[in-house]
Amino acid sequence: MATLDDIAKLAGVSATTVSRVINNYGSLSEKTKTKVFSAMQELNYQPNSLARSLKGKKTQLIGVILPGVSNPFFGQMVQEIEDQLFKKGFKMILCNAGNDAQKERDYLRMLMANRVDGIIAGSHNLGIEEYQKVGLPIISFDRYLSDNVPIVSSDNYQGGQLAAQSLISSGSKNPQIITGSNRPNSPTNSRLTGFKDVLEKHDLSYNLIELPFSSSPNIKSLKIKELLTNKKIDGIFCTDDLTALLVKQQAQALNLQIPTDIRLVGYDGTNFIQNYHPELTTIMQPITDIVTMMIDLLLKRIDDPDCQLEKNYVLPVKLIMGKTTL
Amino acid sequence: MATLDDIAKLAGVSATTVSRVINNYGSLSEKTKTKVFSAMQELNYQPNSLARSLKGKKTQLIGVILPGVSNPFFGQMVQEIEDQLFKKGFKMILCNAGNDAQKERDYLRMLMANRVDGIIAGSHNLGIEEYQKVGLPIISFDRYLSDNVPIVSSDNYQGGQLAAQSLISSGSKNPQIITGSNRPNSPTNSRLTGFKDVLEKHDLSYNLIELPFSSSPNIKSLKIKELLTNKKIDGIFCTDDLTALLVKQQAQALNLQIPTDIRLVGYDGTNFIQNYHPELTTIMQPITDIVTMMIDLLLKRIDDPDCQLEKNYVLPVKLIMGKTTL
Repeated sequence: MATLDDIAKLAGVSATTVSRVINNYGSLSEKTKTKVFSAMQELNYQPNSLARSLKGKKTQLIGVILPGVSNPFFGQMVQEIEDQLFKKGFKMILCNAGNDAQKERDYLRMLMANRVDGIIAGSHNLGIEEYQKVGLPIISFDRYLSDNVPIVSSDNYQGGQLAAQSLISSGSKNPQIITGSNRPNSPTNSRLTGFKDVLEKHDLSYNLIELPFSSSPNIKSLKIKELLTNKKIDGIFCTDDLTALLVKQQAQALNLQIPTDIRLVGYDGTNFIQNYHPELTTIMQPITDIVTMMIDLLLKRIDDPDCQLEKNYVLPVKLIMGKTTL
Repeated sequence: MATLDDIAKLAGVSATTVSRVINNYGSLSEKTKTKVFSAMQELNYQPNSLARSLKGKKTQLIGVILPGVSNPFFGQMVQEIEDQLFKKGFKMILCNAGNDAQKERDYLRMLMANRVDGIIAGSHNLGIEEYQKVGLPIISFDRYLSDNVPIVSSDNYQGGQLAAQSLISSGSKNPQIITGSNRPNSPTNSRLTGFKDVLEKHDLSYNLIELPFSSSPNIKSLKIKELLTNKKIDGIFCTDDLTALLVKQQAQALNLQIPTDIRLVGYDGTNFIQNYHPELTTIMQPITDIVTMMIDLLLKRIDDPDCQLEKNYVLPVKLIMGKTTL
């Protein structure tokens, strides 16, 4: 079995450096990291699978990689994940990957090296190859990561349909959809497809604007203001609630009445939004069910790495009617 | 040196049970846990200090115990903690203790058993004794935990003063303060003291209502409605922003104009509030500075468990003027 010294020798660095790379400690060049990880791969050094193969050597640690808990949606999801894991005797190592690919990559390596039992991932900075290399049980939230990583998501297509229907029944003739960036293979794209399909049935066209998830609220607000000023739109579906709050702000500033002038529908329906913005019509994702499903699948994979799982697990959403559509 | 078997023998349970207690895995009675932890104490089994005493055996894991990340304030704080720890090569195990004393107790034990290098704690379900027993470096956010645990907080007294001043300059004659539960030794009580002292200087009296942090928003809203209906108040300082949002909601429902009828000041001033509720006058806590200070102190204690630290580290707050006071 390969040791730190073997890896150090092959990589041409000291054992201390290898240890630092594994623990991601101290300042290390990307070149050094790559040398060490190549050596680990060549010598088939797999700290985690090794650990798992030794009875009782499970760490009871789960790595969770998500965009960031300062967003109330991921805040609620992380709180739910932590709570459910705790009840099953697991602890959570949290990584907020934001839109920082290097951080996500470093975390993946740290999680592998620290022998977590499994990973829940819902970030999407890295390419497919990097997730395929991980060699640990992974379950994804709402993102395509790799063919062998099951995706748990809410029914994005149904959500898009419900949003379109509520705008139309509220009298919108010129609806608009504001999404984050649409990515190939991303389940969230179905929100757009569901929206589009319902409008087509009603012979309505729509406009689409993309506001990347990582844009600052100030920049988003500017673009929303431009949109509200220049276009003859009378209904907006935002594929997240926070963007809908910005639309509400800008509409107020421009003296546009909601829902008379502009009907508004958001997406996510967190407890936070339901408590502090009950006026907003939104599509509620079943966060508790999503988390229960992700943890259930992950524990199955941890118990039996070769167990067969579906590629997609889709949970139903709910329309929460507020005063922004009537 | 005591082994699992020694502890098992003394506690009168199997070694597997001891391991389960340490890892908090499977269903265990409180009685069994107490027996095992007493035996660990009697045999002076200190997994973490042991680990720390062996060079290179640091886990680079930090335990973080806070009320819960679904609250935007703690969400932003946790994101900042994680980000700063990551840059220093540490990973974070997150515990959302809510108001669940048993969960907080179980986590403390798990963190001790799992040999985290240190703990950041800002929850307050447990008595002083339990934090004194931990035997790990701990830094507290805004809570008195034990005499040897340094507290980092924002200047709660100054915050209370600023809130009172902004209500008064905005024309309030009958101000009100809505706080969470006031606890002995809690630094957050100073928000009330600072508020009170400024009012006294202006020969103004005030009313106080306490709404426990753990109350649901619906229950808080009911009490706020009652308050706004029955009392002749014209200004409210809420010691957290979310409660201020509920006041705004209820005032709107009762057709009370803000700030003409009711002046309103919150507390926390998270990025979330500044972005999505820029209208709210609030006292901004310097979250980044607080986190930098907590991590700096914690790493000092980890390097040298006997290093002398102050009891209190107090960082200045800022008044963010919005349209709810004018």
